[in-house]
Amino acid sequence: MSDQEPILDIAHLGHVELLTPKPQESLNFFVNIWGMQECGRKGDSVYLRAWDDYERATLKLTAAKLPGMGHFAFRTRSKQALDRRVKVLEAAGAGVGWIDGDVGHGPAYQFKNPDGHLQEIYYETEWYQAPAELKPALKNQAQKFPGRGVNVRRLDHLNLLAADVTATREFMEQKLGMRLTEQIVLDSGIEAGAWVTANNKSYDVAIARDHTGTRGRFHHFTYATDTREEILRAADIYLENGVFIETGPHKHAIQQTFFLYAYEPGGNRVEIANAGSRLILAPDWKTIRWTETERKKGQAWGLKTVETFHTYGTPPVEHK
Amino acid sequence: MSDQEPILDIAHLGHVELLTPKPQESLNFFVNIWGMQECGRKGDSVYLRAWDDYERATLKLTAAKLPGMGHFAFRTRSKQALDRRVKVLEAAGAGVGWIDGDVGHGPAYQFKNPDGHLQEIYYETEWYQAPAELKPALKNQAQKFPGRGVNVRRLDHLNLLAADVTATREFMEQKLGMRLTEQIVLDSGIEAGAWVTANNKSYDVAIARDHTGTRGRFHHFTYATDTREEILRAADIYLENGVFIETGPHKHAIQQTFFLYAYEPGGNRVEIANAGSRLILAPDWKTIRWTETERKKGQAWGLKTVETFHTYGTPPVEHK
Amino acid sequence: MSDQEPILDIAHLGHVELLTPKPQESLNFFVNIWGMQECGRKGDSVYLRAWDDYERATLKLTAAKLPGMGHFAFRTRSKQALDRRVKVLEAAGAGVGWIDGDVGHGPAYQFKNPDGHLQEIYYETEWYQAPAELKPALKNQAQKFPGRGVNVRRLDHLNLLAADVTATREFMEQKLGMRLTEQIVLDSGIEAGAWVTANNKSYDVAIARDHTGTRGRFHHFTYATDTREEILRAADIYLENGVFIETGPHKHAIQQTFFLYAYEPGGNRVEIANAGSRLILAPDWKTIRWTETERKKGQAWGLKTVETFHTYGTPPVEHK
Amino acid sequence: MSDQEPILDIAHLGHVELLTPKPQESLNFFVNIWGMQECGRKGDSVYLRAWDDYERATLKLTAAKLPGMGHFAFRTRSKQALDRRVKVLEAAGAGVGWIDGDVGHGPAYQFKNPDGHLQEIYYETEWYQAPAELKPALKNQAQKFPGRGVNVRRLDHLNLLAADVTATREFMEQKLGMRLTEQIVLDSGIEAGAWVTANNKSYDVAIARDHTGTRGRFHHFTYATDTREEILRAADIYLENGVFIETGPHKHAIQQTFFLYAYEPGGNRVEIANAGSRLILAPDWKTIRWTETERKKGQAWGLKTVETFHTYGTPPVEHK
Repeated sequence: MSDQEPILDIAHLGHVELLTPKPQESLNFFVNIWGMQECGRKGDSVYLRAWDDYERATLKLTAAKLPGMGHFAFRTRSKQALDRRVKVLEAAGAGVGWIDGDVGHGPAYQFKNPDGHLQEIYYETEWYQAPAELKPALKNQAQKFPGRGVNVRRLDHLNLLAADVTATREFMEQKLGMRLTEQIVLDSGIEAGAWVTANNKSYDVAIARDHTGTRGRFHHFTYATDTREEILRAADIYLENGVFIETGPHKHAIQQTFFLYAYEPGGNRVEIANAGSRLILAPDWKTIRWTETERKKGQAWGLKTVETFHTYGTPPVEHK
Repeated sequence: MSDQEPILDIAHLGHVELLTPKPQESLNFFVNIWGMQECGRKGDSVYLRAWDDYERATLKLTAAKLPGMGHFAFRTRSKQALDRRVKVLEAAGAGVGWIDGDVGHGPAYQFKNPDGHLQEIYYETEWYQAPAELKPALKNQAQKFPGRGVNVRRLDHLNLLAADVTATREFMEQKLGMRLTEQIVLDSGIEAGAWVTANNKSYDVAIARDHTGTRGRFHHFTYATDTREEILRAADIYLENGVFIETGPHKHAIQQTFFLYAYEPGGNRVEIANAGSRLILAPDWKTIRWTETERKKGQAWGLKTVETFHTYGTPPVEHK
Repeated sequence: MSDQEPILDIAHLGHVELLTPKPQESLNFFVNIWGMQECGRKGDSVYLRAWDDYERATLKLTAAKLPGMGHFAFRTRSKQALDRRVKVLEAAGAGVGWIDGDVGHGPAYQFKNPDGHLQEIYYETEWYQAPAELKPALKNQAQKFPGRGVNVRRLDHLNLLAADVTATREFMEQKLGMRLTEQIVLDSGIEAGAWVTANNKSYDVAIARDHTGTRGRFHHFTYATDTREEILRAADIYLENGVFIETGPHKHAIQQTFFLYAYEPGGNRVEIANAGSRLILAPDWKTIRWTETERKKGQAWGLKTVETFHTYGTPPVEHK
Repeated sequence: MSDQEPILDIAHLGHVELLTPKPQESLNFFVNIWGMQECGRKGDSVYLRAWDDYERATLKLTAAKLPGMGHFAFRTRSKQALDRRVKVLEAAGAGVGWIDGDVGHGPAYQFKNPDGHLQEIYYETEWYQAPAELKPALKNQAQKFPGRGVNVRRLDHLNLLAADVTATREFMEQKLGMRLTEQIVLDSGIEAGAWVTANNKSYDVAIARDHTGTRGRFHHFTYATDTREEILRAADIYLENGVFIETGPHKHAIQQTFFLYAYEPGGNRVEIANAGSRLILAPDWKTIRWTETERKKGQAWGLKTVETFHTYGTPPVEHK
């Protein structure tokens, strides 16, 4: 049992900026297929939210030449926690610098992880205030339930492709205080995947090995639905609307979430998932380490992991 | 925005001791109806666990003359956190003293809240080691899925009856660092209910006003199921097995959990619930305050709260 | 064991005509809350369908001074079956006469049951041909899944209020060949409810005693959803959109369907229900007879039947 | 529109006899994993039932050297219907002859379809009478809900491997009056699959082309669960108990059922499935014909059909 106290400065994944070469089609996907709500526009970006995200925006959709992730952000647990982390990041030479804020949040400190993904941390945020037509019937809910398409509930996590999983994972642990809940270590000793969390979700960020060796790419992000039934129905909705289903619905062996992967019109992989009642409540959770042999068994109920899951990321390798 | 940093010393509700005048019938209920696993015996107590509780035991079932709650316990986030809390509790004069430990956990500090409920905090715990026949197929799960009865997954929360809700709630906030997520304040200004959490669950403990004015009684505890469907099926199982259903299945307006209340054979109220994907991720969650008028609307979809929900607790008033 | 062969001339409930004093609001309810599709207009009527109704229209919504049911119709299993039934109905003096047809179906024979409800039987029907934008991805489905609101799948059954349940039920059995699957017989010997079917559904028509003694009123009709989860979600959608929930979601003791009752804006009661995998496969099903005592237990899991369920029907009594 | 009236003599699939070289392990599977109930023994056979089968037994499990299907049986809608069918079968030279009956049913006429599968038709049956400990709480249910394992509800359908799908399918249509709801016709004109029903289920029997050209083999049989959630949970139960999952859970494109295929310990393929609220209500349902190209798309949400699904049947080819 470690004698060191856990660092608890990061509260949760706050938002993700997604780059899309087809901004209108992507927007249509998130609004009409996923049931999200537009809540702001600025420059080339449209800001979106799910019906129970407490912050104003969790998805920043930015028009770009290529698909990929612009940046992602963690909210800290306090102003002081933000200051502490900034100091550590600066000392580590990872810092990019402060920005004044963006639609929905206040000052944010930008930095890069060892694989080059742009990240932010911030504390000041704008709590969503629903306009009259979107007021929920129950006041402990952020927004009226949309009853449109997949009805995703809230931002859950994101998955980074990294040339060096270990370096990125250790950065998350040591500089941000995140805890490693599960990981894959190949027979060669190479770490092929890592899942880290800042809270009771089993992960806020996953890091997957980029087989192409490219640095800083994006694998997918994930919104949570309330039930597995909504994921089964989402598969029908994808089918009916020509959304490419990459794999699922099925249950992950790692983390045991029920999942469905698709590509949004801009070419980025997006997931909807449900974790049942699984929470990581143990403050001293013991990392689950999966071997190469175990991973070859495929997903929980035997579905083989599709090849593209290991190879496809955004932006395409040739443009990185 | 408060300038004070949150206290994060408590990790989660760890276990509950339930008193039952019908120990064999109660045991049968938890094992065969709820699908729990016996994992120890000592004196007049049988220790039980749900299939994904990471600690060895979350329910201590103790033979007693009357139903009720013996004590309940929080696990802290670290050894140091335990020491900090003990100091605060001692200073507050709430302390009862240290015990060496019990089946499944190490040294625990006992204390009483203002309403007289016996509580414990501890850090050292025994991680459950499943015997061969209960080993799960996936190693990120504590125990084999039972496939028996209701299949409750893990301990979720408990609900205390209190003569003085405010005093008990403030104690939880100030001495233990718990956050108040929702509350009911009557037109008279009296606080009729409070829900506090130490983590991302929307509550670890609920405190309900005891209309009889009696101190220190017990309302119910709750285990989580993975889905709402399992709660609907549980209602069938209760019906088939003569378990008294008090109310539900329905959705709470407060906290929005899907619930089903029943009485176990010893006479204690027990709940199974599912929260969907709702988590309290905001570190600065703004308390939801419900008025008397709002509460009169009943539960989320209109079910009126049954009278016994306000009057029935254990032990019976005349014995307290 | 009866030596008589069953009459199998009626195939299923085909459509219902609903009268509404608020045609625009009612239309909005069925299209945007229930997720139905408009598929025709004629005179004061709008024709609607659910996404997997094979016939063009199953709901005819007609503007009227008062709420209520205009008529309902059965499709027969063949042209010959239609002729046979017409002969029997004519001989019984129940006939009103032939109509040429309506939007979605061919010639229909109108008649009245002993309580005065207007009924039709027809065989020729128009199979729904989805326009390009509503074509389903799978060709064994009638129409694209809407992903809008409750997403009701198909017409299931209707429930008539009758001054004389027995007479109406016997008419359904003897003139139409329907089978009585369940019934309620009070201690007084009065039949308080009857459920009859023409197929493997546990009922196409329910007949409930009108406590006011009024003849020919309407209780509700029901569309089926694929899952119980969709009914739980429908309750959220009703709540969010100000739809009056009368009772549910809960499970009926009789017929065991999972149900949710609401009033559409015109004032008519409407139900969504799910039967799980229950089918009446036995050709010689033995009627389940419920006593007054048994009915007093309430619904399957103990919910008491709300008073309005026994008293509210359309049109209001004073207008009948 | 055909002028001929439909033949409605067959009510439904009544029971299946499964041959197993591991009778004790197979019995354990059906009782403890599927949650079925033993309801009789005779010779080398154990008779089993699901909790809502109205007949005493729907599965006859017979010890044998090799896995496979012994016979399967349809119940007719009346005594007269039975006589009519026997006459037709005799005239067709398909008859094997009468047997006196078996555990759970009366006299049955045995015959063979063109591919050589042994079938029976019967009318007299034994309605299940639950002993005290298995009495259900609701009297419109055949037996107490078990709360054990998968909790299959009732026999649904079976799937035959046939060297000549067309001949077998036409026999079912012409001699028994079954209706063809869906079929696969390859570019070569060869019929690769056919689904026929006698009622509102979308199929009682499926016929799949045996790629090995062997006659009279067995593909699988299927029990229905009430929900898709129970199928997802069944996958967990299979995983935990070492049951081989062949494919699923996923949704079929053909017939749209949600499915999970596994092998029981005797080596036979068994399916659990849920059809949602889909029923074939149209008496003149228009056969859905799938082309080779359409089938290559895989299942509804894109899962590719596993190779063994086309090649594996019982008994193994070399023993037939």
